Amino acid sequence: MTPDAPIGLFDSGVGGLTIMRSLMRQLPQEKLIYLGDTARVPYGNKSPQAIIRYTLDCVNFLIKQRIKLLVVACFTASSHVLYLLQETLPIPVIGVIQCGIEELTRTTRSGRVAILGTTSTIHSGIIQSLLQQRSPLITAFSIACPLFVPFIEEGLIEHPALMLMARHYLASLKTENIDSALLACTHYPMIRSIIQEVLGKDIALVEPAMSCARSAQHTLAQKGWLNQQNQKQDCLFYTTDDTEKFRASAHQFLGFPIETVRPIDL
Amino acid sequence: MTPDAPIGLFDSGVGGLTIMRSLMRQLPQEKLIYLGDTARVPYGNKSPQAIIRYTLDCVNFLIKQRIKLLVVACFTASSHVLYLLQETLPIPVIGVIQCGIEELTRTTRSGRVAILGTTSTIHSGIIQSLLQQRSPLITAFSIACPLFVPFIEEGLIEHPALMLMARHYLASLKTENIDSALLACTHYPMIRSIIQEVLGKDIALVEPAMSCARSAQHTLAQKGWLNQQNQKQDCLFYTTDDTEKFRASAHQFLGFPIETVRPIDL
Repeated sequence: MTPDAPIGLFDSGVGGLTIMRSLMRQLPQEKLIYLGDTARVPYGNKSPQAIIRYTLDCVNFLIKQRIKLLVVACFTASSHVLYLLQETLPIPVIGVIQCGIEELTRTTRSGRVAILGTTSTIHSGIIQSLLQQRSPLITAFSIACPLFVPFIEEGLIEHPALMLMARHYLASLKTENIDSALLACTHYPMIRSIIQEVLGKDIALVEPAMSCARSAQHTLAQKGWLNQQNQKQDCLFYTTDDTEKFRASAHQFLGFPIETVRPIDL
Repeated sequence: MTPDAPIGLFDSGVGGLTIMRSLMRQLPQEKLIYLGDTARVPYGNKSPQAIIRYTLDCVNFLIKQRIKLLVVACFTASSHVLYLLQETLPIPVIGVIQCGIEELTRTTRSGRVAILGTTSTIHSGIIQSLLQQRSPLITAFSIACPLFVPFIEEGLIEHPALMLMARHYLASLKTENIDSALLACTHYPMIRSIIQEVLGKDIALVEPAMSCARSAQHTLAQKGWLNQQNQKQDCLFYTTDDTEKFRASAHQFLGFPIETVRPIDL
C-alpha cells in the first residue's frame, strides 16, 4: 500500500458528508473518495439483509479504487457490517459507531445518556451493546427517529412539523436525567439546534465526526501510510443517483460547493 | 395465453395494495401476484434513470411468472415507464395514471383540479400532459408532497405533524377554487381524511383503484382471457425486503391479514 493511495468513505446518501468535512479539515494532504448510495437511500428502514448487500456493493466499489483506509460513514451500515469488514478487508476500517461511542463516554459525567438513530440502527442493538462492553456503568436510552432523515433530505430542517416530530420522539427523555445524547445518524447534526431545543440546552449533543478524523489520522500514522505531500489534495465524489441533487445537498452539508460528481451504477 | 394465468401488480412498496384490494373485490376468480419492491422504496425521490431500472427489474420478475396482464400500481413508475412497457411487452399493461386521469375527468364539474403526488411523479409532468391532451379545458395545479409517504410508511397517519405538513403542501390550493384532487400516489388514500380536512369537505378526492379494476376486467374480457373458474383464487405476495414488515403493512392497507409473503432478490 502506498501513502498516496486515497481514503474511501461511503454513506447511504449525503449524511456522511459531515464526516467527510472533518476528514478534509484534519487531513488536507489526503486524497478522499466519497460514495453516496443515493439510489437506495434510506438504509435506515430496510432489513439487515438488504443493508448488508448494499454495503458490500459500496465497499467493493471503493476497494477497486485502491483505497488505503475505509471509513463507514453511516451508522446503519456500520451497525450491521462493521465487524465483518474489519475481519475480512485487507485494509483498516473505521466505523462511525466506535468513534461515536468514544466521544459519548468521554463526554458524559452522570453516565445517563441517550442514543438517537434510525430504526435499523436502534433495533440492531449494536451501539447499546458496544457501549455496555466499554462502560458497564453507563445507562443508555435508545430512541429510533425514523422521520428525521426524510425531513433533512427534503431540506425542511426548520419546519414546525419537524419540531413536533422531535418532541414526539424525544419527549420520554425529559424525565430520564440524561446529560448527553449521541447523534447516531450522520444526518442528525443538520438538525442539531432542534434536538438541542427539545432536550434542553444543558444536554451535550455528541457526534462522531472529529473523533473519526482523529482515528483515521492515528491509524494511518501507525501504519506509516500518511500522505507526505504538502499540498491540499482533490476529493472525488460518486453517487448512484442524480448528480445534480447530490451536488445541491453536498453544498448544504459541506458548507461549500463541490465541482465534479460522478454517477456510478453498483 | 391461458385464461387461468395470473394478473401481476407491482409497486415500490405497499401503497399499491390499495389497487390490489380493488382487483380482489372486482375479480375474485382471478389469481393475483403482488410484488412490492420494499428494499428500494421510496421511488418518488429517485431519478428517472433509477426508477426505470427498478421498474424493469420488477416487470421482468412478473413476466417470468407468466402473467396475462400487468398493472403498474405505482404512480411514480407509471409516470416514467408506462409507455415503454405498453409498447414492448407482449401482454396488456394498465397504469394507475391513466385510470386516475379517467376518474378525475369524470369527477370534475368546474374543470379546476389538483394533482397531488411524489416529487418524481409531479416533476415528470406526465399526468399534467396526459390530462391536457384528454381534456384541454381543464386547469390543473400540481403539488409534490414528498413527506406523505414516509409518514404513512411509519404508520403515523394521524399525527399532528402530518397535519402541519398537509397544510404546508396544500395551503396554496385554498384560493384556486378547485373542485377535485387526484391522489396521484397509491399511498395517499391512507391519509384521505387529513387531505379532506385541509382541502375542505366539498372537494372530491379521486383515486384510481376502482377504475383500474374495471379497466383490468374490460381488457381481459375483450381478449377472452377472463378466468372462467367459479371459485375464489389465491393471491401471492412477494417483497424484496423484510417479509414481516410487509405482512404488517399489508394488513393495514388491505384491511385483512395475509398469510404467505415470499422474499425475492431482484
